[in-house]
Amino acid sequence: MKDFTYYAPTKIFFGVGEEKKVGSIISSYGYKKIMLHYGGGSIKKTGLYDRVVRSLEAAGIEYVDFGGAEPNPKLSHVRKGAGICRDEGIELVLAVGGGSAIDSAKAISVQAANDEDMWLYAMKKATPKKALKTATILTLSASGSEMSSSCVITNDEREAWLKRGFGSELNRPLFSILNPELTYTLPPYQTACGIVDIMMHTLERYLTKAGESALTDRIAESLLKTVVEAGAKAIECPEDYEARAQLMWAGSLSHNDLTACGRDYFMVSHQIEHELSGMYDYVAHGAGLAVVFPAWCKYAYKYNIPRFCRFAKSVWGIEVDLFDMEKTALRGIEATESFFRSIGMPTRIGELNIPASAYDEMAEKCTNYGERTLPGYIDYGKKEIIEILKLAE
Amino acid sequence: MKDFTYYAPTKIFFGVGEEKKVGSIISSYGYKKIMLHYGGGSIKKTGLYDRVVRSLEAAGIEYVDFGGAEPNPKLSHVRKGAGICRDEGIELVLAVGGGSAIDSAKAISVQAANDEDMWLYAMKKATPKKALKTATILTLSASGSEMSSSCVITNDEREAWLKRGFGSELNRPLFSILNPELTYTLPPYQTACGIVDIMMHTLERYLTKAGESALTDRIAESLLKTVVEAGAKAIECPEDYEARAQLMWAGSLSHNDLTACGRDYFMVSHQIEHELSGMYDYVAHGAGLAVVFPAWCKYAYKYNIPRFCRFAKSVWGIEVDLFDMEKTALRGIEATESFFRSIGMPTRIGELNIPASAYDEMAEKCTNYGERTLPGYIDYGKKEIIEILKLAE
Repeated sequence: MKDFTYYAPTKIFFGVGEEKKVGSIISSYGYKKIMLHYGGGSIKKTGLYDRVVRSLEAAGIEYVDFGGAEPNPKLSHVRKGAGICRDEGIELVLAVGGGSAIDSAKAISVQAANDEDMWLYAMKKATPKKALKTATILTLSASGSEMSSSCVITNDEREAWLKRGFGSELNRPLFSILNPELTYTLPPYQTACGIVDIMMHTLERYLTKAGESALTDRIAESLLKTVVEAGAKAIECPEDYEARAQLMWAGSLSHNDLTACGRDYFMVSHQIEHELSGMYDYVAHGAGLAVVFPAWCKYAYKYNIPRFCRFAKSVWGIEVDLFDMEKTALRGIEATESFFRSIGMPTRIGELNIPASAYDEMAEKCTNYGERTLPGYIDYGKKEIIEILKLAE
Repeated sequence: MKDFTYYAPTKIFFGVGEEKKVGSIISSYGYKKIMLHYGGGSIKKTGLYDRVVRSLEAAGIEYVDFGGAEPNPKLSHVRKGAGICRDEGIELVLAVGGGSAIDSAKAISVQAANDEDMWLYAMKKATPKKALKTATILTLSASGSEMSSSCVITNDEREAWLKRGFGSELNRPLFSILNPELTYTLPPYQTACGIVDIMMHTLERYLTKAGESALTDRIAESLLKTVVEAGAKAIECPEDYEARAQLMWAGSLSHNDLTACGRDYFMVSHQIEHELSGMYDYVAHGAGLAVVFPAWCKYAYKYNIPRFCRFAKSVWGIEVDLFDMEKTALRGIEATESFFRSIGMPTRIGELNIPASAYDEMAEKCTNYGERTLPGYIDYGKKEIIEILKLAE
């Protein structure tokens, strides 16, 4: 087991109707003035917005309404939100939504508390020392942002859009409210994107260089098996509470670092995907991952065939062919791809309408124009990234 | 999945030599004056005490030395420690040791911050609102107290000794340092007691009334399988780092509530055992559990035979006999008992030198002299507790 630090202090309130407690929960922490941050109008249509507002009002919490968080949240919008937080003396940013609203809330909280430009933090050129508090009411099982230390922001203020993850313990939400029923109304495509994202957060901690780490490995496999099982059910029957609940809890545990304890954590597929949905804003992150991950696997499995065999066996129930382990490894990758397809995900880059002519620019951006490589089984530079993109064809 | 709240904010520093950072970690939180709390002299013999003191001094942390925490920590000692904390203006109590030192530190922290008698809290007659901070350097994988919200205290100030658990979010340590090497020198008997305790924290959340909860159930099984595997290795080879590391991390996850998410949590075996080691101070908690748990299983399995079958299959690899599921359930219980014996644990009450004449008093105490029953598959009163004790013969 590798040495590690584990810190997941977000308090979780899980269950039906928990969102109605949000006012009294915020009150219990002593906060009085918050920003209510969300995306489009869907939370108004479903009645969630009204329930939240009623709960805030009943608890005497003053709130400033700031919607408009977009998928792949934008830096310009973050800056606007941060300005409002400063002007209004906001103490906590409450995100109501999925990963985009939550990531946006995290970035707003950091920018509001610091004079430095937060893009410096995203580009790892500086480190913030403080942030406003954030909290969440989750409406989509996917990003794990409701318990994670990370947020992903797209810089829309330069000619070439750049999407970057920004990690800091300051990003951990104070609390998150998880009511699986809030995900009943999601379109199947969005549910499926979430399923892929959840699996990926664990897979990028599981298919890594470190040796076996018994407990963490088993927890990771438990999570993956549960997501595959519950994911298929939720696609088939969107109002299956148990399936929605398993997905939601798995989403949180998948990215709160539990599955990294004692292991490496490399985000090669995530980082490559960020260039896809960063440049092609219509690409959903989960769909991008469903395309990039199998391609990465086909490129990388040869660096750890036994590990890919373990994955094939423990998650997909494939018997290991001890005389041809490579075949088993490949069968596990095929099974993953075929599961993605079964829930309606694309698995080829062409399905995302991304032309081969864009690979070079994506690889350039992904390496910060040659300034970095992506660590993993090997160091992935521009050449390797292009090869992986080609394997996604 | 049942509704739940999950909150495990303790920061974990896991790995070789992490204890040398303790001074700078405390410093990073801004604390300047602490109590250094521990048990007997073993941490002085191993050199751990010196390493801790050097780290504190290097970071300019002032400390008050307060040793003497006993197995089954005593209320009188807690009061003494709390008095010192008040007199000295202590901000944080650092426990260096196993569950006893940590539980004692938690109780001291609570008593020091409150004028009310903390025994009222243990007897659930009042609720504390504040406590000093605690932190731990763990030397024994067992209690899970390093991440848990509970502590167990024995009232030695009344004629009839009473041992009670006291749960509060105030009890969660600020941080815990886990260095598996610190457990190398444990005698096999203590290692084995720890193994049983770790398994029990998960089992009392796993063999409960609620229905299946896919992810939590799988995590629980992952934990149990890992402890059985690593436990046997650590007994055989006390300096097997990987085995010690798996046990240590499993111990923390077993009692930080992760394995309770979406499930019931009943502590029947723990509560009955508290009367054994409460009245017979020489009885180690883990050894008492190794005796009580199989007896409780034999009493209780009939209330949920499928669940006991799942346990038999998933943890012990026993094929389920679909034509005689009761037989499978019983085989799982036998396998547990035989594992306990294989690591040197007693499994019969006679081995603890507890006479049958004591059952009545233990059952009286366990029900607070008829004031309570223990919730579980059924409500366990005095009669049921005595029946379970008889099954342990």
